[in-house]
Amino acid sequence: MAPRKQREIFTATLDLLADRGYERLTIEGVAERSGVNKTTIYRWWPSKAALLGAALVDADLLAYDAPDTGSLRGDLTALVENVRRLLTRPPAKDVAVAALGAAVHHPELDARRFFTDRLTREGQIFERAVRRGELAPDADPMLIVDLLGGAVWMRAVFRGFDLDDDFAERAVSAVLDGVFPLAR
Amino acid sequence: MAPRKQREIFTATLDLLADRGYERLTIEGVAERSGVNKTTIYRWWPSKAALLGAALVDADLLAYDAPDTGSLRGDLTALVENVRRLLTRPPAKDVAVAALGAAVHHPELDARRFFTDRLTREGQIFERAVRRGELAPDADPMLIVDLLGGAVWMRAVFRGFDLDDDFAERAVSAVLDGVFPLAR
Repeated sequence: MAPRKQREIFTATLDLLADRGYERLTIEGVAERSGVNKTTIYRWWPSKAALLGAALVDADLLAYDAPDTGSLRGDLTALVENVRRLLTRPPAKDVAVAALGAAVHHPELDARRFFTDRLTREGQIFERAVRRGELAPDADPMLIVDLLGGAVWMRAVFRGFDLDDDFAERAVSAVLDGVFPLAR
Repeated sequence: MAPRKQREIFTATLDLLADRGYERLTIEGVAERSGVNKTTIYRWWPSKAALLGAALVDADLLAYDAPDTGSLRGDLTALVENVRRLLTRPPAKDVAVAALGAAVHHPELDARRFFTDRLTREGQIFERAVRRGELAPDADPMLIVDLLGGAVWMRAVFRGFDLDDDFAERAVSAVLDGVFPLAR
């Protein structure tokens, strides 16, 4: 499929998801909104779960480059800012929250693909940090991104709070430096 | 309302949520399953969102005592184990994941009440840690529980991974000690 056509299909998919929610997302609706024949869409993606899964991974809306600021602290702070933007600012927020909320109830909408893809992209942050001597070679990147990304989700989505401007810096400091200085 | 009757209503509410999901949860269904007249239920909780919100906060199924192990590290490790159990073991898992997933799409189902209640209970962990000199008085308990609880959610629900037996210990160590030892 031509990249431009694919992009139009993905954009229509995410627009419809944000507008209607996952339950009422249909391939017919995506065909109508994108102007691409529905049999063409079905040929590439056999179900709406497969289509949305692919759209989440590849759409520009949710894409971000892994930051490269010169330090692990700078990279992680920029990463938390990316996640914060994704989960708090429309239209990305509407898509990300609808998709992740739906993934909880619909295992066939495989959120793991999205998170695995992002972790692969973020891997270079940790490789550079190990090379620079900032991080032990046996550190666990998935644990670090799950602590930080999970905290944004908890605060912004479950608690429904705004994130202070220094949230990223404070969260990264907790994970890099620890909150236990008195006991050391 | 008599505590026993309330308990029966809450149990019926959470059972129905786990069985049918939030969309198909109804006060009529709760009345039928609990044997309590629906007008009685409506008198106390004007909507299914209000009823479920109250059930989440007060039901025995999702309750846990704030741990008191004698150290901040021990208390936080036990806390992460509690959250892990809640999000990975049926029947608590079915209720917690269904409720939190629904809260994402239904702001009227106020998940904040649940999290505020839990943070209040957990507050004593941090007060004791400050008194013992383990934690700076200006430390941010909400940030600490959001990092840890969010990491369990990310790993167990979004990534769909089992949590290793040492997950709690490793997550707590990351937040207390930091993962940055080489740069100190």
